[in-house]
Amino acid sequence: MALDDSKREFRFVGTRPDRPDGLDKVTGRARFGADMNAAGMLHGAILRSPHAHARIVRIDTSKAEALADVKAVVTRADFAEVPFKPGLAGEVWNVLENVMAGDKALYDGHAVAAVAATSALAARDALKLIEVEYEELPYVTDVNAAMRQDAPVIREGAADFSVPDDMHPNVVRRHESGHGDVEAGFAEADLVIEDSFETEATHQGYIEPHACLGQLGKDGKGELWCCTQGHWIVQKTCAALLGIETANLRVTASEIGGGFGGKTTVFIEPVALALSRKANRPVKIVMSRAEVFRATGPTASASMDIKVGMKKDGTITAAQGEFRLQGGAFPGAPGDMTAMCAFAPYDLKNVHQVGYDVMTNRPKQAAYRAPGSPMAAFAVESVVDELCRKLDLDPIEVRLKNAAREGTKASYGPRFERIGLVETLEAAKAHPHYAAPLKPGQGRGISCGFWFNHGGETSVSLALSEDGSVQLMVGTPDIGGSRASMALMAAEVLGIPYENIRVTIADTASLGYNDVSHGSRVTYASGLATIKAAKDAVRKLSQRAAAKWGIPEDAVKWEDGCAVPSGPNAGDFDPLPLAEITAEMGQTGGPISGHFEATPEGAGVSFATHIVDAEVDRETGATKVVRYTVIQDAGKAIHPTYVEGQFQGGAAQGIGWALNEEYIYGEDGRLQNAGFLDYRIPVASDLPMIDTVIVEVPNPGHPFGVRGVGETSICPPLAAIANAVSAAAGVRMRHLPMSPPRTLAALKARDA
Amino acid sequence: MALDDSKREFRFVGTRPDRPDGLDKVTGRARFGADMNAAGMLHGAILRSPHAHARIVRIDTSKAEALADVKAVVTRADFAEVPFKPGLAGEVWNVLENVMAGDKALYDGHAVAAVAATSALAARDALKLIEVEYEELPYVTDVNAAMRQDAPVIREGAADFSVPDDMHPNVVRRHESGHGDVEAGFAEADLVIEDSFETEATHQGYIEPHACLGQLGKDGKGELWCCTQGHWIVQKTCAALLGIETANLRVTASEIGGGFGGKTTVFIEPVALALSRKANRPVKIVMSRAEVFRATGPTASASMDIKVGMKKDGTITAAQGEFRLQGGAFPGAPGDMTAMCAFAPYDLKNVHQVGYDVMTNRPKQAAYRAPGSPMAAFAVESVVDELCRKLDLDPIEVRLKNAAREGTKASYGPRFERIGLVETLEAAKAHPHYAAPLKPGQGRGISCGFWFNHGGETSVSLALSEDGSVQLMVGTPDIGGSRASMALMAAEVLGIPYENIRVTIADTASLGYNDVSHGSRVTYASGLATIKAAKDAVRKLSQRAAAKWGIPEDAVKWEDGCAVPSGPNAGDFDPLPLAEITAEMGQTGGPISGHFEATPEGAGVSFATHIVDAEVDRETGATKVVRYTVIQDAGKAIHPTYVEGQFQGGAAQGIGWALNEEYIYGEDGRLQNAGFLDYRIPVASDLPMIDTVIVEVPNPGHPFGVRGVGETSICPPLAAIANAVSAAAGVRMRHLPMSPPRTLAALKARDA
Repeated sequence: MALDDSKREFRFVGTRPDRPDGLDKVTGRARFGADMNAAGMLHGAILRSPHAHARIVRIDTSKAEALADVKAVVTRADFAEVPFKPGLAGEVWNVLENVMAGDKALYDGHAVAAVAATSALAARDALKLIEVEYEELPYVTDVNAAMRQDAPVIREGAADFSVPDDMHPNVVRRHESGHGDVEAGFAEADLVIEDSFETEATHQGYIEPHACLGQLGKDGKGELWCCTQGHWIVQKTCAALLGIETANLRVTASEIGGGFGGKTTVFIEPVALALSRKANRPVKIVMSRAEVFRATGPTASASMDIKVGMKKDGTITAAQGEFRLQGGAFPGAPGDMTAMCAFAPYDLKNVHQVGYDVMTNRPKQAAYRAPGSPMAAFAVESVVDELCRKLDLDPIEVRLKNAAREGTKASYGPRFERIGLVETLEAAKAHPHYAAPLKPGQGRGISCGFWFNHGGETSVSLALSEDGSVQLMVGTPDIGGSRASMALMAAEVLGIPYENIRVTIADTASLGYNDVSHGSRVTYASGLATIKAAKDAVRKLSQRAAAKWGIPEDAVKWEDGCAVPSGPNAGDFDPLPLAEITAEMGQTGGPISGHFEATPEGAGVSFATHIVDAEVDRETGATKVVRYTVIQDAGKAIHPTYVEGQFQGGAAQGIGWALNEEYIYGEDGRLQNAGFLDYRIPVASDLPMIDTVIVEVPNPGHPFGVRGVGETSICPPLAAIANAVSAAAGVRMRHLPMSPPRTLAALKARDA
Repeated sequence: MALDDSKREFRFVGTRPDRPDGLDKVTGRARFGADMNAAGMLHGAILRSPHAHARIVRIDTSKAEALADVKAVVTRADFAEVPFKPGLAGEVWNVLENVMAGDKALYDGHAVAAVAATSALAARDALKLIEVEYEELPYVTDVNAAMRQDAPVIREGAADFSVPDDMHPNVVRRHESGHGDVEAGFAEADLVIEDSFETEATHQGYIEPHACLGQLGKDGKGELWCCTQGHWIVQKTCAALLGIETANLRVTASEIGGGFGGKTTVFIEPVALALSRKANRPVKIVMSRAEVFRATGPTASASMDIKVGMKKDGTITAAQGEFRLQGGAFPGAPGDMTAMCAFAPYDLKNVHQVGYDVMTNRPKQAAYRAPGSPMAAFAVESVVDELCRKLDLDPIEVRLKNAAREGTKASYGPRFERIGLVETLEAAKAHPHYAAPLKPGQGRGISCGFWFNHGGETSVSLALSEDGSVQLMVGTPDIGGSRASMALMAAEVLGIPYENIRVTIADTASLGYNDVSHGSRVTYASGLATIKAAKDAVRKLSQRAAAKWGIPEDAVKWEDGCAVPSGPNAGDFDPLPLAEITAEMGQTGGPISGHFEATPEGAGVSFATHIVDAEVDRETGATKVVRYTVIQDAGKAIHPTYVEGQFQGGAAQGIGWALNEEYIYGEDGRLQNAGFLDYRIPVASDLPMIDTVIVEVPNPGHPFGVRGVGETSICPPLAAIANAVSAAAGVRMRHLPMSPPRTLAALKARDA
């Protein structure tokens, strides 16, 4: 029953069947976070700090508790005692403190109390009766200001061992990496450019606000329904925050209306459970959009200094960068990953990067597609673009000349295995877009982008029905078409039609542990586990055939969904289809299932090259993206339509981030644009058709060659668009978003 | 890591911890069949035949469909075409025909159409607008009448190959078994008694009426929530009845308010799904108690002829029986099992039994705890009792003299392995109850009872959490405390506290196939699978310890929840607790789970002996059971409190069956007592304290020795009570229930 994947001719993988959740989503049958109800259910609402930084002197909940409709009020005292530890070692404490403030409110929107009442209206009304006495404290919301010695201290002792003692306590983690001698490298260069860049915090902008329905008994047993990218992390975190055993909390992931990294932690879920435990009734909480903006995790904002040296022939001699990431009032900003990604597309002799994780009085940052990498690419690729301009070199040729390849010692340490950066650059060079003429006032930019991709803990099971249809249980919420891609991979191994496989996102009480749907890991890791689980089932199916035929197990091979006698027994028996084996399985040994659990470690890194044409309105400063092409290495595209969708989605979100989206804080330290009217994400008319080219350089770490595709696609856009806008405007854009006022100011400064 | 169960000293098994579902059930947190709702849900109602037997000439649903509140009406045309086959080979057709009538209504209460509307009231009102034109047909509801050549034919061609051609078409299956020469045996006897007995149909009387919530899309994908003893059989059957693939229907078992065999098939579930498919909305159906009586499965009624020969010393020389079982309008009455159980407690040289499965115009019978065995025991043990009386022999001594033992060739064929009948008889003989004096007017009866017990297809998985708590997934609905017993067995293998294990009844999309919770199979088969799955996890835990220590895997043993170095490595390392291994599992290879799938075939048969004292009121004919002792072989009692509960429950239901419960049909062929006011189940004041004695003769087919206990406990009561009443009344009672009118008539006949 050998299945030699390296020589596999794919039958199902690479096709584009209908999505299994299509009808569910167009008919309303799909159940999202807010779509679950329970008998006796209460509605929860959360009281939030109006101050950027304030000591909580006193909370009096008695008036709210006196209302007949109010069944429970909780504050921090209703959660478990969790030890404080510095840096990410204290992440459970950090999450708890973010979920419900302890001694201080740390940002505008920070939860300080919550109410469960018989209606959502009653719950919101009751919030007004909770009296909180605050002692306002100085605050800081800017990353560079927060690092200055006179900055207000967010929390003493939050820095971990990596931070030098002489830095401000708001700097909580420091990363440093690189190799070679950058000073020697800069000395070899014909041109060295040193420049600084900034990006603002943006929100993932998922359609569906956070919503959950929780139930927790005084016996410590509970259930939770919520929209999340990973219900096991919700289970584990809620259990820790409520002081119960993990296995006693059953968490089911609802259908999810977008996450992009922002639904990889908890916000309202532990609050609903704490309210439920107190009220002894199920509690539902649904966030408003304003709450999503004020109190969930936007991406980090960044301030970056880049220095790159280049010879006249385009050879990069040295590169260095400093990346200061602002992550809100808790450790976690991806200073490390930003630094590590920054120069990853280049094969450099001399490279050095430092990243900082800096706290401010803002909401705790969360992941947003390839956290850190888009900002790093913006800064680095802007400098490389400027070098190409100054040295009159073609930007693709320069990147090809310096491109990371198989065997390159990556800027962040390891040696690359087989990678596809060069293939994306060659495809870009050959693409009609790159040669197309530009109109006056337009500029073209290109950029490369990189993401690590991730494996992570994964469990998959697969159960066969008597009629030969297959139930596939995966534990990673479907945020990008994984039900389709898992079914295709299982179909490929089992040799039965895609339509015969139903994929379920199993709850935490129905499958082994699964890491979150993040790190572009799902098609890779859940896919690998699906393939292995399907092979486990094929092994058992083949055993049944061997027993039926009375031949050795290794004399059975699996072909086109059938057990087939092979070797000396070839031709002795007719092929035995899967459904004929399953029809008898109860009588031939019992039910047949396949299982696989592992933490696969061969997630292949991936690269993309984007080409953008932009047009800048010199009177308003408004930018229009007029043409956009995404070229990315997918390793192997399991369901190409979804892969193209990821490519397009990354570009679309990148356009928003590059041109308009930003968190705007007032002098009072409060968020000024907590809604989609003032926080401007792209609408359809803001976007051109986004062309896609799938490059397939197989990942040797996956049986079918899969690489993650979800995150790399957002890495190049900020840089590619900035390069296009800089070309169109005739001025280097160093601060995102390139919103009309900011671009207009740059144009005026250039003209001045 | 050897776990030698044969020498196991149990640490958790055999203890009596709190039940894991206790708080759920006393606080209302447990969700039963009717407790689930969905957005946009409709309510279904079913139109039922008022005739015992009628051709359906025409159904006009147009007036009902015209109502604004009505969203769908279905008849048989809305289900799949399923081929008719004779006997049990056509069970899918039989179930479909029972769920929704085709050409004929076959009994009072048979479903003929169904409506889904925006409220339950609107649905019931709409039923009145459905016009059904019936052509009434002759009917028969009595088993002996149904076998006569002039009986109306329920369905031509329903009989299978086992029935002689000259029998009436209502006789659909025939069973014959035995060994030796009964005529020669009767010739050796000093006394031969031949007698006839009857039992009436009874209902399982579960507290919770059938309820479900179904959703099925036009893409053939659906979900179903229902109270059932086995959601995989529901899944498979509904898929067949609706013409969809099994894996496309996800079925979740609700908490269940009793089943006793009656919830092992489908009634309303396919109807809810058919309505949902047509209305494109979720549909809920909840049966009324009258519908439960009229249209779900009561037990079969029986008519039986028994002949037993005995020597003066008590030796039984021969035994034979004919068992005619009435199973409603479809094949399935357990004539075979009744015959096979009848003489199983005896080691007989000459034995012969014949069983018939007979159709009548009554609802399709369903299983009810040890189907067929209680009636058989009533008939056989009455005759044995009568022989003992006539020959002045002690009934226990006679049973001991003839008792089946290890090696006995069973009356139904196989040789018994290690069994515990003699141990129950010895315990009965030694019990104070057996020697206690009786008051005037009281009588004492004893009886033995037998049940096969069953293995069945079983899948169990078990997943470990980082904090060392364990999630155990079983697929057999908990109808008798299986969550507690599974947790105890897993705790025993893993060596961690019972409280650290949470047992979930996995839905059909979360685990491999599982047979129904029936046949007293759960503690045996799911228990065996739990033990094996836990051992699979222990093996993986031990591997991680071996890898950490750098010693061979077989040098690690598992003791008290810890990996321990053994052999030459003994003492080299400190014991490594489970929770320390799981804390690192993500980094040491991935999540740890255990799995097991099989159809175990070592379910040990079991025996019980009951002692009953009864008192008969000679003026009213009312019987009071004044003392009751159950002595039963459990193999090994995992959670003795639940075992005792099963013993007591079997006796309690047996008391109802023996004394009062019966389906009463009128001359019009309609059920006259479809409600608990007229169908009299025992209330608390009808019952004495039921004493229990657990005998433990380990089943060699289970690692911990478990035998099923749920069904055997209902096998002796009918006979034991009849023997007690016969002694008290001074007249042999041959017809159950021994209700006051029937007993009074017997007393009068005796005195006449």
